[in-house]
Amino acid sequence: MVSEKYDLVVIGAGPAGLSAGIYAARYKLNVIVIGKEMGGLAATAHRICNYPSYNNVKGFELMQKFIQHAEELGVKIVYKEVTKIDKKNKEFVIQADKEYRSKKIVFAGGTIQKKLGLKNEGKFVGKGVSYCATCDAAFFKNKIVTIVGGSDSALTAALLLSEFATKVYIIYRKDKFFRGDPSWVDLVEKEKKIIPIFNEEIMEIMGNEKVEGVKLKSGKELKLEGVFIEIGSVPEIKFISKLNIKITDSGYIITDKNQKTNIPGFFAAGDITDSELKQIVTAASQGAIASYNVYQEIKKEAN
Amino acid sequence: MVSEKYDLVVIGAGPAGLSAGIYAARYKLNVIVIGKEMGGLAATAHRICNYPSYNNVKGFELMQKFIQHAEELGVKIVYKEVTKIDKKNKEFVIQADKEYRSKKIVFAGGTIQKKLGLKNEGKFVGKGVSYCATCDAAFFKNKIVTIVGGSDSALTAALLLSEFATKVYIIYRKDKFFRGDPSWVDLVEKEKKIIPIFNEEIMEIMGNEKVEGVKLKSGKELKLEGVFIEIGSVPEIKFISKLNIKITDSGYIITDKNQKTNIPGFFAAGDITDSELKQIVTAASQGAIASYNVYQEIKKEAN
Repeated sequence: MVSEKYDLVVIGAGPAGLSAGIYAARYKLNVIVIGKEMGGLAATAHRICNYPSYNNVKGFELMQKFIQHAEELGVKIVYKEVTKIDKKNKEFVIQADKEYRSKKIVFAGGTIQKKLGLKNEGKFVGKGVSYCATCDAAFFKNKIVTIVGGSDSALTAALLLSEFATKVYIIYRKDKFFRGDPSWVDLVEKEKKIIPIFNEEIMEIMGNEKVEGVKLKSGKELKLEGVFIEIGSVPEIKFISKLNIKITDSGYIITDKNQKTNIPGFFAAGDITDSELKQIVTAASQGAIASYNVYQEIKKEAN
Repeated sequence: MVSEKYDLVVIGAGPAGLSAGIYAARYKLNVIVIGKEMGGLAATAHRICNYPSYNNVKGFELMQKFIQHAEELGVKIVYKEVTKIDKKNKEFVIQADKEYRSKKIVFAGGTIQKKLGLKNEGKFVGKGVSYCATCDAAFFKNKIVTIVGGSDSALTAALLLSEFATKVYIIYRKDKFFRGDPSWVDLVEKEKKIIPIFNEEIMEIMGNEKVEGVKLKSGKELKLEGVFIEIGSVPEIKFISKLNIKITDSGYIITDKNQKTNIPGFFAAGDITDSELKQIVTAASQGAIASYNVYQEIKKEAN
């Protein structure tokens, strides 16, 4: 099998992966970025207000700028799913649309949205159940919807939906939004269309062809047509399990301050890592640091 | 003496300090940024090509965007020099144009340019000797100049000067530009106006009223009118010496991954810290992480 060879394969095309690509290009490394989706989770964000120098930008728009930056520097980007990574004789072998080989890997695969795990949840996806307010909010004009969750993403999803829906519940199992950024909490509390319901959980999503309502733990029922699930995300690392990379109990990859993992040549950056604050600027910084250290290693190995 | 009180005083108005301000504002902290100069060292950069999403922007322009972002979020910024920081009863007391008090400090004071330490160096500042190519390049149209140093800043300074001067020497004491970003090295090597002189040092700056030439270690003399000194920078931490903050042998502040120093409530971010890769995106990330942890501490202490 013929495989394409690179100094560095970056996996993930979100803020961390694209920044790793940008830096690798500045270091004149032969680099390719392989990402499932353009811009990663950041591209689905309705509003981004804290990537320094942008006070209010759509996630998709900001990620397009990252991509343009990378492409102008000659970074090759392909949108394919990586299914397997092996290490053979100090070389990584990556399976995607074809086989890639590289000296180093920066793994910036990000996370995927958590599901509630309810019986009808899968059946109603695209019929009232959504994991992406940015993608689907506009379909709920003049309807009643609920958000599930209490994080920043839940709050911004509620704010976005309040621009379309007539009423937006937020069902949250805690007794207040202590996890949310206070700026979002303030805005949510001021918006009259938004009705937080604390200490509650959805037990059942009701409906025939599409969502018609939800039944709560307390027994209470709500009539509504949309359920936006924003209960966080989980790292997706199944396909690297063979490499025995050290992860936390929750599945996040453990790195040192140079973004190195326990496997030589395998770096990680962005939401997939065990860093506490997960932001675009922190992910971009980690991508830069990873490629800087990739470059240092390659330079040393060449001597 | 009446002092202004804040949750957080950020010292430094470069990428790290402004990002700390932006994040503090998002966390609804009562914050002020006190900086000696708008935008810090980054604002003097001729071209910035690696803050992800900007492939080519003037340092001053990018820093204006950071400032605008902070100001739109209501961050108060004053341009004053901090002369002293004390800690009294769990409170920091900061002396600048007036006295400020705060629960927490994010110190992002950056670094200052190193001097060559030659006899006439001070006398010729503004008369041929410069530490800022961005500021002074245009004054050297059709003249011969030299850069001193071999880092990225030296190389970008040479490229900028080659747009004005007829000839640009680079005097560097090493035998090649191994420290520079390979993209800059390439461009420098391609530019015919730029003449690197390796394994050399300036022993004397010659001239009467203004710079007329330099004498090198080898005894060789060069006729030229400008000496741009780009030999790196040093952290400026004299005025915090009383706090006994742990620093490296070179004077950089040691922080943990949450940007905490050994002094409770005193955080550090950006070029002043002991992190290896010093970039705008890494500084901005550290500023964000610092303010996130300031917020966590303040929230805990309030309970």
